[in-house]
Amino acid sequence: MNSRLGQQIAFLVEADKLKSIVRRTPLVDGSRLENSAEHSWHLVLVMMVLREYGPAGIDWMRAIEMVAVHDLVEIDAGDVSAYDETGLEAKSQRERDAADRIFGLLPTDQCDRFRELWDEFEARQTPEARFANAIDRLQPLLQNEHSGGGSWCVQVLADTQILRRMAPIEVAMPDVWPHVLDVVESFCRAGVLQRTRR
Amino acid sequence: MNSRLGQQIAFLVEADKLKSIVRRTPLVDGSRLENSAEHSWHLVLVMMVLREYGPAGIDWMRAIEMVAVHDLVEIDAGDVSAYDETGLEAKSQRERDAADRIFGLLPTDQCDRFRELWDEFEARQTPEARFANAIDRLQPLLQNEHSGGGSWCVQVLADTQILRRMAPIEVAMPDVWPHVLDVVESFCRAGVLQRTRR
Repeated sequence: MNSRLGQQIAFLVEADKLKSIVRRTPLVDGSRLENSAEHSWHLVLVMMVLREYGPAGIDWMRAIEMVAVHDLVEIDAGDVSAYDETGLEAKSQRERDAADRIFGLLPTDQCDRFRELWDEFEARQTPEARFANAIDRLQPLLQNEHSGGGSWCVQVLADTQILRRMAPIEVAMPDVWPHVLDVVESFCRAGVLQRTRR
Repeated sequence: MNSRLGQQIAFLVEADKLKSIVRRTPLVDGSRLENSAEHSWHLVLVMMVLREYGPAGIDWMRAIEMVAVHDLVEIDAGDVSAYDETGLEAKSQRERDAADRIFGLLPTDQCDRFRELWDEFEARQTPEARFANAIDRLQPLLQNEHSGGGSWCVQVLADTQILRRMAPIEVAMPDVWPHVLDVVESFCRAGVLQRTRR
């Protein structure tokens, strides 16, 4: 086998490990927690369906590629709860090390390209990255909404924490934001989230 | 919530069920069988990495969207082994019914668009569909290769059956075909596949 194809296959085989990284969010039927690979697929689908709510004229292909690769670093760095402040401090360095190793399996040109996609997603400065991040916030909200609270039920969380986490949706998909507010309100009413704003 | 967004969310929530459709192919570490949602994500990634081996000038976005949606019909129709001739006969009608119901959850314009993507994938007539199908054959071969034979170990299969199944790779990615031949040859030598060609 030529060594370029060999490197590419080694990367694709390594990527298989993302299927074993377990997230906090359950499947809608509550049968188990979802993993980061199937979550990434779901993001691609959410993006295909909800793109009309995003900014006009962006590079959709790039945005889709960003969500497809955004979680690969978790193979080394794990999935850290968005509400775990301690975990988040160390997370950033661990994820950069993971990006070095995992994208480093690819031939140099592709390593650079994938790293660029990941850096762009993390920096949240371009419209594509902002939309991709908004989709990455919205999908777990929908999972939680339709599984009776999901990951919101296993820790004590306030409405303001959720809304801060979901804020990228307000910017990137303003027409979807009222649905986010409705969901948070209804889970406050159900006693799953703590109501702290008035 | 406006009813268009409501329909879109209902579709996205229904799509979550693809995470519970179990395939024949194991994860590379052999810990369990993979599901069709994480398989679909892996196809997106394989396509991103191996596109240089595909035809020039095709619509990559369309090809990626095709692999993202191609297995959704399995939510109703299940995953049938590619080597189960009896199952394959009934499969086609069940999958069309599934496409009617599942894509039918979307607003009409999106239902038509997703159905078109799925029909195009199934018909294998366009270069995009031929490449998407080749990727859908190659990914399980890589999983099997790197998990000691994977799904090839649980049924009696001949080299010619595998090569017939993999034939779309020869057409769409001729430079990857020698690797397929090498893999099949080595699993014949290991006694996992029956050697019938000379």
